[in-house]
Amino acid sequence: MAHDGADEAQAILMAVTELAATGRAFSARGWVPATSGNFSRRIGEAAVLVTASGTEKGELTPADFLRIDLDGAPLDELGPRPSAEAPLHGAIYRRFAGARAVLHVHAPATTAISLGRRDAVTLTGYEMLKALAGVTTHEHVETIPIVPNDQDTTRLAAAAGDQLDRTPDAHAYLIAGHGLYTWGSSVAEARRHVEALEFLFECELRRGEQR
Amino acid sequence: MAHDGADEAQAILMAVTELAATGRAFSARGWVPATSGNFSRRIGEAAVLVTASGTEKGELTPADFLRIDLDGAPLDELGPRPSAEAPLHGAIYRRFAGARAVLHVHAPATTAISLGRRDAVTLTGYEMLKALAGVTTHEHVETIPIVPNDQDTTRLAAAAGDQLDRTPDAHAYLIAGHGLYTWGSSVAEARRHVEALEFLFECELRRGEQR
Amino acid sequence: MAHDGADEAQAILMAVTELAATGRAFSARGWVPATSGNFSRRIGEAAVLVTASGTEKGELTPADFLRIDLDGAPLDELGPRPSAEAPLHGAIYRRFAGARAVLHVHAPATTAISLGRRDAVTLTGYEMLKALAGVTTHEHVETIPIVPNDQDTTRLAAAAGDQLDRTPDAHAYLIAGHGLYTWGSSVAEARRHVEALEFLFECELRRGEQR
Amino acid sequence: MAHDGADEAQAILMAVTELAATGRAFSARGWVPATSGNFSRRIGEAAVLVTASGTEKGELTPADFLRIDLDGAPLDELGPRPSAEAPLHGAIYRRFAGARAVLHVHAPATTAISLGRRDAVTLTGYEMLKALAGVTTHEHVETIPIVPNDQDTTRLAAAAGDQLDRTPDAHAYLIAGHGLYTWGSSVAEARRHVEALEFLFECELRRGEQR
Repeated sequence: MAHDGADEAQAILMAVTELAATGRAFSARGWVPATSGNFSRRIGEAAVLVTASGTEKGELTPADFLRIDLDGAPLDELGPRPSAEAPLHGAIYRRFAGARAVLHVHAPATTAISLGRRDAVTLTGYEMLKALAGVTTHEHVETIPIVPNDQDTTRLAAAAGDQLDRTPDAHAYLIAGHGLYTWGSSVAEARRHVEALEFLFECELRRGEQR
Repeated sequence: MAHDGADEAQAILMAVTELAATGRAFSARGWVPATSGNFSRRIGEAAVLVTASGTEKGELTPADFLRIDLDGAPLDELGPRPSAEAPLHGAIYRRFAGARAVLHVHAPATTAISLGRRDAVTLTGYEMLKALAGVTTHEHVETIPIVPNDQDTTRLAAAAGDQLDRTPDAHAYLIAGHGLYTWGSSVAEARRHVEALEFLFECELRRGEQR
Repeated sequence: MAHDGADEAQAILMAVTELAATGRAFSARGWVPATSGNFSRRIGEAAVLVTASGTEKGELTPADFLRIDLDGAPLDELGPRPSAEAPLHGAIYRRFAGARAVLHVHAPATTAISLGRRDAVTLTGYEMLKALAGVTTHEHVETIPIVPNDQDTTRLAAAAGDQLDRTPDAHAYLIAGHGLYTWGSSVAEARRHVEALEFLFECELRRGEQR
Repeated sequence: MAHDGADEAQAILMAVTELAATGRAFSARGWVPATSGNFSRRIGEAAVLVTASGTEKGELTPADFLRIDLDGAPLDELGPRPSAEAPLHGAIYRRFAGARAVLHVHAPATTAISLGRRDAVTLTGYEMLKALAGVTTHEHVETIPIVPNDQDTTRLAAAAGDQLDRTPDAHAYLIAGHGLYTWGSSVAEARRHVEALEFLFECELRRGEQR
């Protein structure tokens, strides 16, 4: 297979533009505070563009990205260090051929709901569930698993991968006390999933306020 | 009646401008997440301009709209697909001659309050009720019915229509676990209704916090 | 006393600029939804500039203001109708010579806290109390009276005035289920009072969340 | 040691730029309402640039800053009055050689959580803890002490200093009913601490909402 440098350059340019716009929108909502979160976009058979470690997601520029392989290893000798969570992105791309973008955020309802004594959040009865790819009815039951946190991100990626193997229909997973991972066939679809899930978790937390 | 193309073109242009501005404002508040919501404006005896399916409401352009009749059927052969909820807009225009704009949002308090075990939300004692067309006192009792959700939008439009026939004084209705429908004699009036009702539902949810 | 038209024109220009900026800031925070709220600025011995009825406070232009006397009666034959609550502004200017600006908002914590079964909100122990004019310590006890709502705004202005006569040290008052009135020696000071009080009411509502 | 005026001018210029950008971001989030909060940046061995008293933090210009020594005394004869809390900044710079910026905010969750009957907030189990300088795991236990408020800021600075001597590993402290003080090796690091801590306090308050 001939390597087409011009095509990849074009894919990188578009990925940077889309992910930077996503970062500005999420930052304005308080979903990536304190340089948290990380974003990626698949740009080839064996290549992913990912945000570098410690970048402010509301102000992403081309210099804040680098290319990695599906194990999370950098493809270029020079350039910034990848996010420590790069293997978690790879675990998603390896399992789901349709996944072309992965977004990870620390949004408030997302993080608050991950702290309960349970191993999944079950969502049903919401029209907003239809924002998840392939869902066609509010009667859909979406189970978002919660994976325990682990600072060894290779081990965490393996645990998350095992969880995804057991729940292949989930559109996302939570890491306890940490945040949300979701993906999509495009940056737009992955972003739609983030917006829908943060909204749904917020509704779940707030419905208890009613008398 | 002669068809006046120039007048309709002018009406479409103004409707796009007003609805796009509404979309930007609602998006900034988080009221139309994940491409949710849909907006329409009556532009003639038998024609309505409505947002296309799956559009991002914070970034509406003329290409995101199409013309439908009062049953929700597209009036043009080419162009985008209407929102699946187009019949719900028609059900409102058919019943209320004064309705010239319909707005549907998935705002957080709106959705959270629709989830209780009840068939209506009753609001009274708020000065903000006067933002609803024709209401002149905080002593007004506004009953906002809650209609069960249904993926068959023709059936849902019929159910919502029956509900509107039973409660013709309501300024809006909720669909359970879904969102809010409201309308007005102009885009500005319908937008005022959205802002007032989301505020009132938020107050209803929060008053329980007091000790 | 010679009437100095040039001075008044200058005062009006500055008042419009300051109140429009205040409106944009409050609108972005959701404190004046659905054309609610009204603002005024004293521009002479017997003249006040006030927002017209039904204006969108986030988009104020010179055409959205008019001159009234201290009873709330328009001073010009032509021009827009004053807010129905104009007499409430006069009641404040008549009582407090130092009051040069009055701001009325429907902010969420403000409105939610006005709904309890009590006739005042007492605030103490907050450093933020020092944002209220003349307060020098967090040990200050600020009592914000709650006046019952009334659609007869002349009667409401009289009731609010009587309340202000009984609690002359208060920096603001609430109308039940309605909103907040506060004032200051400048638009900046009145705006500081709005920001401080909405923050303090929010803290009062939220402190109950702690375990 | 020769005094290098050009270097200091450069340091001041950069400090103003960074702190003004921080102020705009914090103001948009509602974290410095009603001219509250104050910011500083160490610009030399014995000199700190600090915001003047009563400034609006969302609109900082060079005229809103002045130079003080580590006791909080102004270094220039002319110019604005320093914040009354200048000695609290000095108490931090004196203790931590690595502290080059200090940020103080009145953010809502920060203030609400400071009001409980306790003398510290303990945070653990959150990935976001890693936004605090030197923290490498969510298992880290961060104890943020709460110091009682005092209008005598020299006495308050001494009390806060004593507290910092007892808890030298803390990344911040709260003043009861008042707000947060945190610091960093740069404005960016101190800002990261503010964003992380407000997020974590918000999660602590909200986790109680779950059933």
